[in-house]
Amino acid sequence: MSDKTDSIAHLTHEIREFARERDWEQFHDPKSLVLALVGEVGELAELFQWVPAADAVAEFQDPARKQRAGEEIADVLTYLLRLADVLEIDIAEDACRKLDGSRERFVATTVRGQAPLKN
Amino acid sequence: MSDKTDSIAHLTHEIREFARERDWEQFHDPKSLVLALVGEVGELAELFQWVPAADAVAEFQDPARKQRAGEEIADVLTYLLRLADVLEIDIAEDACRKLDGSRERFVATTVRGQAPLKN
Amino acid sequence: MSDKTDSIAHLTHEIREFARERDWEQFHDPKSLVLALVGEVGELAELFQWVPAADAVAEFQDPARKQRAGEEIADVLTYLLRLADVLEIDIAEDACRKLDGSRERFVATTVRGQAPLKN
Amino acid sequence: MSDKTDSIAHLTHEIREFARERDWEQFHDPKSLVLALVGEVGELAELFQWVPAADAVAEFQDPARKQRAGEEIADVLTYLLRLADVLEIDIAEDACRKLDGSRERFVATTVRGQAPLKN
Repeated sequence: MSDKTDSIAHLTHEIREFARERDWEQFHDPKSLVLALVGEVGELAELFQWVPAADAVAEFQDPARKQRAGEEIADVLTYLLRLADVLEIDIAEDACRKLDGSRERFVATTVRGQAPLKN
Repeated sequence: MSDKTDSIAHLTHEIREFARERDWEQFHDPKSLVLALVGEVGELAELFQWVPAADAVAEFQDPARKQRAGEEIADVLTYLLRLADVLEIDIAEDACRKLDGSRERFVATTVRGQAPLKN
Repeated sequence: MSDKTDSIAHLTHEIREFARERDWEQFHDPKSLVLALVGEVGELAELFQWVPAADAVAEFQDPARKQRAGEEIADVLTYLLRLADVLEIDIAEDACRKLDGSRERFVATTVRGQAPLKN
Repeated sequence: MSDKTDSIAHLTHEIREFARERDWEQFHDPKSLVLALVGEVGELAELFQWVPAADAVAEFQDPARKQRAGEEIADVLTYLLRLADVLEIDIAEDACRKLDGSRERFVATTVRGQAPLKN
């Protein structure tokens, strides 16, 4: 994979152009985008709902199921990047800052092996 | 922002190390990660629920609200990348492939300005 | 509609029998049921995602769309009642108690016409 | 619990009056209500996210946790009934019809003990 493909800014730009070329920006207000995101999260959840928790990683080694999961995850990412874009949010920067905060809040030697409380 | 920070692979690696250092991989089966993702999507939805649709972009120019939105979007991204990682899914590649498919399916000159049917 | 049909306890009982007759109780642990619920919420969200907020009630007067919305809402209700059932939660009682709490918290004369803060 | 409390129509009426008394109907368009529902589903998901699937029912016998789960389930139900109400959908009737359809689609003797495919 090229570095460019792997860049959040590049992917965000591609999605923005996709919307612009179809004159779909008019539909992309934040509330509508969150609902679209929820729709994709629902499809992702459905893939796993009846799979025994301990078997999920193994079962999704199957190429067809892995591909389906990859598609749904990609759909969620697409709407998430589009939402960040219309809100002019630098999602990569915010994710790094959030991770720095979590590193301080959850000191490794203190919380090791304990189920994290809700974030 | 450095190119490195903006890389999906780099961010995925940082999140993986964060989990590994705390011995939290044991909690990160796919079903649990989807539920954690849903929790963060819920917090994101709450920010927008009572905002008039047409005012959302303007209201979230306010620095404090923009920061809150950025934090929730970052949390969703974090769990999404972690999920892709445990499933060994290359999310950037899948997102590019999905976008290529959408470009074919929704020909710009045909669908211009029409509300896209559910993806 | 008969009183019986309208009873939460009756509906809960019907759903329980449906699961029991198919030996599906084994799949109905809480995490799986929440994921199934999320799947149905996603289908519900998709129905509304690109509809202008102000037009949604009018557009869903259309019999076919109203029926679709009714089906998705029914699916969400079904998994919600099933979840309450496996957790032995009296959902009607809890909803009444929650509403009593909200009546105290949000005094009508004080909050009238103001967007409620997140609950 | 009285029969009245257990009636979906009665609960729907109580929620409608709660909104009317606070002049909150103006905020209760379908898209906003779905987002509010998603917020509550997120809080519900968070309760279960890191609990081992097999332990969830037992862990939520604990009175404090059971009460928390009951509150979140009640919140989801409240927004779901409010959504059905603004769309003039008879949710109890639709749930019964959906269940009848599922009884035909999933014949008990045929599907017994097999993980149901997504509904």
